[in-house]
Amino acid sequence: MPMTVPTLLVLDADPPPRLGRLTGRVRIVRADADTLAERLPDADVLLVWDFASTAVRAAWPGEGPRPRWVHTASAGVDHLLCPELVASDTVVTNARGIFEQPIAEYVAALVLAMAKDLPRTLELQGRREWRHREGQRLAGTRACVVGSGPIGRAIVRTLKALGVTTALVGRVPRTGIHGPQDLDRLLARADWVIAAAPLTEQTRGMFDTRRFGVMQPSARFVNVGRGQLVVQDALAQALAKRWIAGAALDVFEDEPLTPESPLWQVPGLIVSPHMSGDTVGWRDELGAQFVELYERWAAGRGLPNVVDKKRGYVPGH
Amino acid sequence: MPMTVPTLLVLDADPPPRLGRLTGRVRIVRADADTLAERLPDADVLLVWDFASTAVRAAWPGEGPRPRWVHTASAGVDHLLCPELVASDTVVTNARGIFEQPIAEYVAALVLAMAKDLPRTLELQGRREWRHREGQRLAGTRACVVGSGPIGRAIVRTLKALGVTTALVGRVPRTGIHGPQDLDRLLARADWVIAAAPLTEQTRGMFDTRRFGVMQPSARFVNVGRGQLVVQDALAQALAKRWIAGAALDVFEDEPLTPESPLWQVPGLIVSPHMSGDTVGWRDELGAQFVELYERWAAGRGLPNVVDKKRGYVPGH
Repeated sequence: MPMTVPTLLVLDADPPPRLGRLTGRVRIVRADADTLAERLPDADVLLVWDFASTAVRAAWPGEGPRPRWVHTASAGVDHLLCPELVASDTVVTNARGIFEQPIAEYVAALVLAMAKDLPRTLELQGRREWRHREGQRLAGTRACVVGSGPIGRAIVRTLKALGVTTALVGRVPRTGIHGPQDLDRLLARADWVIAAAPLTEQTRGMFDTRRFGVMQPSARFVNVGRGQLVVQDALAQALAKRWIAGAALDVFEDEPLTPESPLWQVPGLIVSPHMSGDTVGWRDELGAQFVELYERWAAGRGLPNVVDKKRGYVPGH
Repeated sequence: MPMTVPTLLVLDADPPPRLGRLTGRVRIVRADADTLAERLPDADVLLVWDFASTAVRAAWPGEGPRPRWVHTASAGVDHLLCPELVASDTVVTNARGIFEQPIAEYVAALVLAMAKDLPRTLELQGRREWRHREGQRLAGTRACVVGSGPIGRAIVRTLKALGVTTALVGRVPRTGIHGPQDLDRLLARADWVIAAAPLTEQTRGMFDTRRFGVMQPSARFVNVGRGQLVVQDALAQALAKRWIAGAALDVFEDEPLTPESPLWQVPGLIVSPHMSGDTVGWRDELGAQFVELYERWAAGRGLPNVVDKKRGYVPGH
């Protein structure tokens, strides 16, 4: 437990976090990507509020003391882990609990929109064309959800509630979760393939030409995990060659997607701007979660949501 | 039970029903709107395969005998009921059991698409614009479903599975179902208002200026029942004045909607071509359902899905 007023360094973003309840109990110092390195040595705690930034990975290896605790206002931690942080005693926590339900609903929205041909309906509406089509019955179809963390499990719960038969794939097999050795077999019979895995050395580029080739021509692919899980060119090719019937990406190798990116116009691909987990009030929820965690930390109690830095995520139940 | 081979008159549509199992057991005569009247007197059974046609209502009052049984390949029966058919001994059955789950899924697709701002996402994609927005969390919101038949109840089940708090409104209050006297109060607190009622004299035009005025500015309205439930101009005005936040219509006063209709371009309105219940294979399901009912009828057994002709729908559970 700190004896003096601890210093909280905030890697800031606009709008900043609302930390009113911490007023007077903590010295708040703000930093951006340029000033982070020089301010790190004085910080007891680092709040990575700018969850899109890779500044921590760049600044961490420098000289001097380091915060004992780093919290990121995100589910993924790939943007901050570097070998020096992994090797250190610093505890890393994430925003587990905030994004699961919104992301699961977002996946359901995409899956149902594709099943019911909604993008085409909106396109025809724009052209004032009445063209009756047949939708697909979602109940009774099969989904393979890749990523067995809380987000993947929330997706499974939501799809199951809609009558979808689901299979969940994780890093290691356990009750109700398939291991990687089952993945290809499950992909080959899935109507829906949902990527919700953390970005690690094992998952980077896992959805490549070979994996899209294994899927059914009627399959649709959705990525709400990290852009780097997918070899984007391979997906574009798979759609162009009709290896699969459709896809939706909410995350990309490089974000934001530039206007020049060919992905905007790939036929059968829905592009959304990394918004699956972000529902009205989400920033306040992230701020309130950090305040709660801070109070536990300041009281010397154990922190939840602790990341296994070697694995790159908060390990399962 | 008929002593000779019965005559089945089919008010046809393209593609025609697949009635292979009835071959040799029934004399099949086909009619269109022009020939229906002259062929009605010879028919034992009338299959209304062209469920968009109002030809039965026009032809029924004529001279001569009438079929003892009329089956319509639709959930709604408003397109065929006329006073003479209502007063007759002829049994009318509908396609209960085919459309419930698909329509419930379609409503979920629309509700989720609106919650997650998907139409705007697709519009921005077309303009190659990355613009992050916040979605709405669906779980915890409130829906008022109007129409307590099997379609309304399926919608309630599906929305409940997504964490939505639901209220169901029917013609008469009973356990779990509100009566019309509760409607305005429920509309005033609903995030989602779903119209799934049959078209009767009580429901015609029920969603009018006054009712849209009762709803919350954040409310969204969905009609998957019948077009005439809604005063279309009143809805367009309510959207233009931002009395409500959005709407989706799958059914219209006059179908198909002509290219000249102003509805195509009402801001905040999703227009789809009466497809909510129509999933791949639906025509075969409708044909198989009729064959099954025919076999019961020919064996002198009671028919399910019998319409209360005075009320205009199949009553109760």
